Amino acid sequence: MLSNNSYEGTGLSMDDAFWNRFRDCIVQEGIPYQWKALNDALPEDTEPSHCLRNFRIAAGKEEGTHQGFVFQDSDVYKWLEGTAFSLRWHPDPELEALADSAITIVTDAQQPDGYLNTYYTIHGLDKRWTNLQDHHELYCAGHLIEAAVAYYQATGKRTLLDTAIRFVDHIDSVLGPEPGKLHGYPGHPVIEMALMRLYALTGEEKYLRLAKYFIDQRGQAPLYFEEEAGRGGWTNFWHEGPLRWKYYQAEKPVRDQTEAQGHAVRAVYLYSGMADVSRETGDQELAESCRRMWNSITQRRLYITGAIGSSEYGEAFTFDYDLPNDTVYGETCAAIGLVFFARRMLKLEKLGKYADVMEQALYNGVISGMQLDGKRFFYVNPLEVVPEACREDYHKRHVKPERQKWFGCACCPPNIIRLLASLEDYVCDTEKDTLYLHLYIGGVIHSDLMTLRAETGYPWSGNVCLTVEEASTKEAVLALRIPAWCHTWTLQVNEEAIDIRPSDGYIYLKRSWCQGDRISLNLDMPVRMIYANPAVREDAGKAALMRGPIVYCLEEADNGPDLHTLRHAPKLNAETKSEPEKLGGIVSLDTDGLRESRNEWGTELYAERKPETEAVRLRWIPYYAWANRGIGEMTVWVRY
Amino acid sequence: MLSNNSYEGTGLSMDDAFWNRFRDCIVQEGIPYQWKALNDALPEDTEPSHCLRNFRIAAGKEEGTHQGFVFQDSDVYKWLEGTAFSLRWHPDPELEALADSAITIVTDAQQPDGYLNTYYTIHGLDKRWTNLQDHHELYCAGHLIEAAVAYYQATGKRTLLDTAIRFVDHIDSVLGPEPGKLHGYPGHPVIEMALMRLYALTGEEKYLRLAKYFIDQRGQAPLYFEEEAGRGGWTNFWHEGPLRWKYYQAEKPVRDQTEAQGHAVRAVYLYSGMADVSRETGDQELAESCRRMWNSITQRRLYITGAIGSSEYGEAFTFDYDLPNDTVYGETCAAIGLVFFARRMLKLEKLGKYADVMEQALYNGVISGMQLDGKRFFYVNPLEVVPEACREDYHKRHVKPERQKWFGCACCPPNIIRLLASLEDYVCDTEKDTLYLHLYIGGVIHSDLMTLRAETGYPWSGNVCLTVEEASTKEAVLALRIPAWCHTWTLQVNEEAIDIRPSDGYIYLKRSWCQGDRISLNLDMPVRMIYANPAVREDAGKAALMRGPIVYCLEEADNGPDLHTLRHAPKLNAETKSEPEKLGGIVSLDTDGLRESRNEWGTELYAERKPETEAVRLRWIPYYAWANRGIGEMTVWVRY
Repeated sequence: MLSNNSYEGTGLSMDDAFWNRFRDCIVQEGIPYQWKALNDALPEDTEPSHCLRNFRIAAGKEEGTHQGFVFQDSDVYKWLEGTAFSLRWHPDPELEALADSAITIVTDAQQPDGYLNTYYTIHGLDKRWTNLQDHHELYCAGHLIEAAVAYYQATGKRTLLDTAIRFVDHIDSVLGPEPGKLHGYPGHPVIEMALMRLYALTGEEKYLRLAKYFIDQRGQAPLYFEEEAGRGGWTNFWHEGPLRWKYYQAEKPVRDQTEAQGHAVRAVYLYSGMADVSRETGDQELAESCRRMWNSITQRRLYITGAIGSSEYGEAFTFDYDLPNDTVYGETCAAIGLVFFARRMLKLEKLGKYADVMEQALYNGVISGMQLDGKRFFYVNPLEVVPEACREDYHKRHVKPERQKWFGCACCPPNIIRLLASLEDYVCDTEKDTLYLHLYIGGVIHSDLMTLRAETGYPWSGNVCLTVEEASTKEAVLALRIPAWCHTWTLQVNEEAIDIRPSDGYIYLKRSWCQGDRISLNLDMPVRMIYANPAVREDAGKAALMRGPIVYCLEEADNGPDLHTLRHAPKLNAETKSEPEKLGGIVSLDTDGLRESRNEWGTELYAERKPETEAVRLRWIPYYAWANRGIGEMTVWVRY
Repeated sequence: MLSNNSYEGTGLSMDDAFWNRFRDCIVQEGIPYQWKALNDALPEDTEPSHCLRNFRIAAGKEEGTHQGFVFQDSDVYKWLEGTAFSLRWHPDPELEALADSAITIVTDAQQPDGYLNTYYTIHGLDKRWTNLQDHHELYCAGHLIEAAVAYYQATGKRTLLDTAIRFVDHIDSVLGPEPGKLHGYPGHPVIEMALMRLYALTGEEKYLRLAKYFIDQRGQAPLYFEEEAGRGGWTNFWHEGPLRWKYYQAEKPVRDQTEAQGHAVRAVYLYSGMADVSRETGDQELAESCRRMWNSITQRRLYITGAIGSSEYGEAFTFDYDLPNDTVYGETCAAIGLVFFARRMLKLEKLGKYADVMEQALYNGVISGMQLDGKRFFYVNPLEVVPEACREDYHKRHVKPERQKWFGCACCPPNIIRLLASLEDYVCDTEKDTLYLHLYIGGVIHSDLMTLRAETGYPWSGNVCLTVEEASTKEAVLALRIPAWCHTWTLQVNEEAIDIRPSDGYIYLKRSWCQGDRISLNLDMPVRMIYANPAVREDAGKAALMRGPIVYCLEEADNGPDLHTLRHAPKLNAETKSEPEKLGGIVSLDTDGLRESRNEWGTELYAERKPETEAVRLRWIPYYAWANRGIGEMTVWVRY
């Protein structure tokens, strides 16, 4: 029995000033642009994708060899998933026809036994499943499943779904605990949460079992990857450095791991699958592992922008409180993966802290990955950039001062699209008699309990108006999240002030709701000066500015060069300014600051005098909007 | 006509409390230890040298193949040079016999045509001179020449000198401007200053001509290295990053270069040779190039410790004011090379600024390279170390929190030894009727103008007593350097106060000196709080402490972990403490500071409150003495 609803039944028909602009970009720019990329139809100075060509070659429709990464297939799957999500709110028969044509290209490459992977089909099927560690067959399968489920749910068409199911059945015949099967698991997780999505759609236990196996088998001794490497005659590339098997989250079984470690995207994808499995099975030990990983990230390894992954080496977590702003990796996909993980923890237990981090990543380190026109993308999301250092310091070569048109490894652009195109799935949940509102995004919220119209100027204003458009006759609870950043608010129901303290981040309003009921929540949004835990070396003596969920930054375009010579004045004296024409519409901030003068200093490199300072006004813009006005310096953290 | 004097005629018989300890280490530990290293006689956990074995194989005395780097030969040359210097002030017949035996091993490997390089002799002489860019034949030749001159000057024995001269004659027949010769130059400079030393000893114009050719041909179009790579079928390894030909100081001719660039050791070795040639030839354009490189380094690319080379990538300079303290390279050899360059600029023109930097490097970033017991060495000299980061952050893997016993590329240990063993050559100069005192080091200064006894507690005290032990009857000038760090001093000659302002860093005392004349210079040495030019991003908001020429640092051993949570108090309130038993005898400092408390903060990673502070006393030790009490954090720059 298949369910043709969107993810989890409760949803939103979005109509939101802030997000409409991003979503317009997606349908007008992102999806068509990325279709061209997949077809190698972008201008010649753009890195080619080879993706659809690989499928045609694998299907015997074209001559040639596999090009691009071993995981190149996943690009079309992610594009299909994002496209599917967009069709839910922006029906477009022409686009759907394009997607159908892509699906034909994909399914044509499936082997009679269900196997589907262009790299091994082209290079020799005899070698398949010999390098789970690095060759991404299961990763590509995971993205195929996600695309197939989304496309089926959006269009009712099941061609891709059937293909995915055949492939999963094949995988299930090759991998698993039974004798004669390979006791392996993916080097790059994603199939775990994909299988759980397929399980949610179909109710087929086999998919849950396989997801659980991949999670529990990971890191068990003897280590599968080590045995596999022995058979293949290779060594783990990461063995010379500090990562070793941590890179693959395989140093030990996930239930024994104490810290978020290794490749950051892989980590949060894995934890997302773990959260799915623990919710579905009620496995409390696994849930505890998820909470441990959550705490490790959010208490010790998270940038203020929601970025994760401190080091370019292995695109990985490093160690507690190691959060360099200038050499950070902070891959867009990792922030997206953190949103996935947060969303699933929120499904597991309704604690506002999960929604807080989901919001933090979404409004900052995720959307910073896309240019405001939707045409260029960041892979790496630094919190401090000096363009000269990006050019001249080889160890900062991964940090780009401007977004790129496409990437040889193009995981991030379609990942942003599939997240933003499915944003409605992140807004609310129904649990028993309670409708939870996690994010404040305008539109109409549909649930079995009620239909609510949400109107808000979020994130620029904390005013949220909710109007009940339909309600069941039973008593129901409306749970409104009070973000951790918000210390004062007013709440009214039908003009009557409500004074209830939030419990674990939510105010619970229980009553028999009637059509026309109006809930007015006004979250105060002063400019906040944020300090890092004193354990964070790189932020010592510095403060960042936030307003609501938005992290601000200084750019050279507004503040001149040498941003490191700027300081917060002892008194903040902040002024907010709504600028609907600037950077797609923002609220900018002006604050009192000090500039240490380079001109007064002279040619000495070291001297016995403090640099002289002059008073200046600092101009701040939202972090996500940086690097949309040419190349220049940027910083989030500023000395106080 | 050969001169059997030490370098340049004026010298010092050293007897100095501070330096005696280092020099005792050299003769008791360093030289014997490194002899074992050259013979692969160190314990098995030490990286082998292969150096002397390569010579024996090249001479046909032993079977085997060349092992170690292509420049492995230079290790024995540098050991011989250091040993030669030590024999000048610490005659040791047994050591001299060892050195003679090493010289026999070396000279046995010389080819009939004068060629001497074990790598090519073993791998095939037909390939010699085909890779000047990376294969260090001329570099090894340079160190052979330096060793040969030093050994001849110390012992009067000319076996090695004759070998070196035969090799130079061979080089002169192969390389040069004439048709039929290779128009190349070394990828790693050193032969330029070596040839100038040979020229100073022999007066043979050919050596000067060859040095000048290597300097002027460098970077000329068409680029020799590019042509050579074309012939050899390789590409410049550095071409993918920002260094390209800059790595080799070959991006353009040296007279057109505007900034110190590329591999820092190669750079200062080259500039040293340039200074020698310009002094000898009176070439003002070349002198101007040297001054430009000097300013580039000392005004924009120099650490406060005298370290140079901001990046591990290429062990190289990066860009102006880019001086990261934690990822710095700061190779010991580069600080030593800066001392070479400073010494030569001081020969070129008597400006105190050259001696200031020479002193700054010598008392800080050079001797930090050696453990106080002389048994372990740093290659990289960071100004901020967190041991966990060295282990867990792959991009800091070059930074070691403790000195190493030996290195596969063992350039630094013998380089420290040859510098410290010849320190008397850096102390003073005679120019016409003037005896210049550049460094205040105890002992007896010999010159044609006078003999002076110097007594001082430098660098811990600024008291310098000079007694004339012999004087010529003519009027003579005594030029006493007033270090730039010293703002107040008293000067007396025979108890009579002298009030003369220094000119370009020297006070000139002209008179007819008599035996028994006493000059008493007292340089005030308050603790100084030093700020970096506001253009230096990494030191913004921070200050370092110096006293006299000594840079101080905080160590975990004295101040606990999390040094980044410490700040200078608004008022310094410094107390100095002489600790003759600690760390080989130091003056330590205590100052008022603040500690930001990690314990008060809780588990939040970011919050709206400033970290709380408590008053603490900070304990500072000289930077050079860090990492002599186990592994722990260290920092030079501290927030104010």
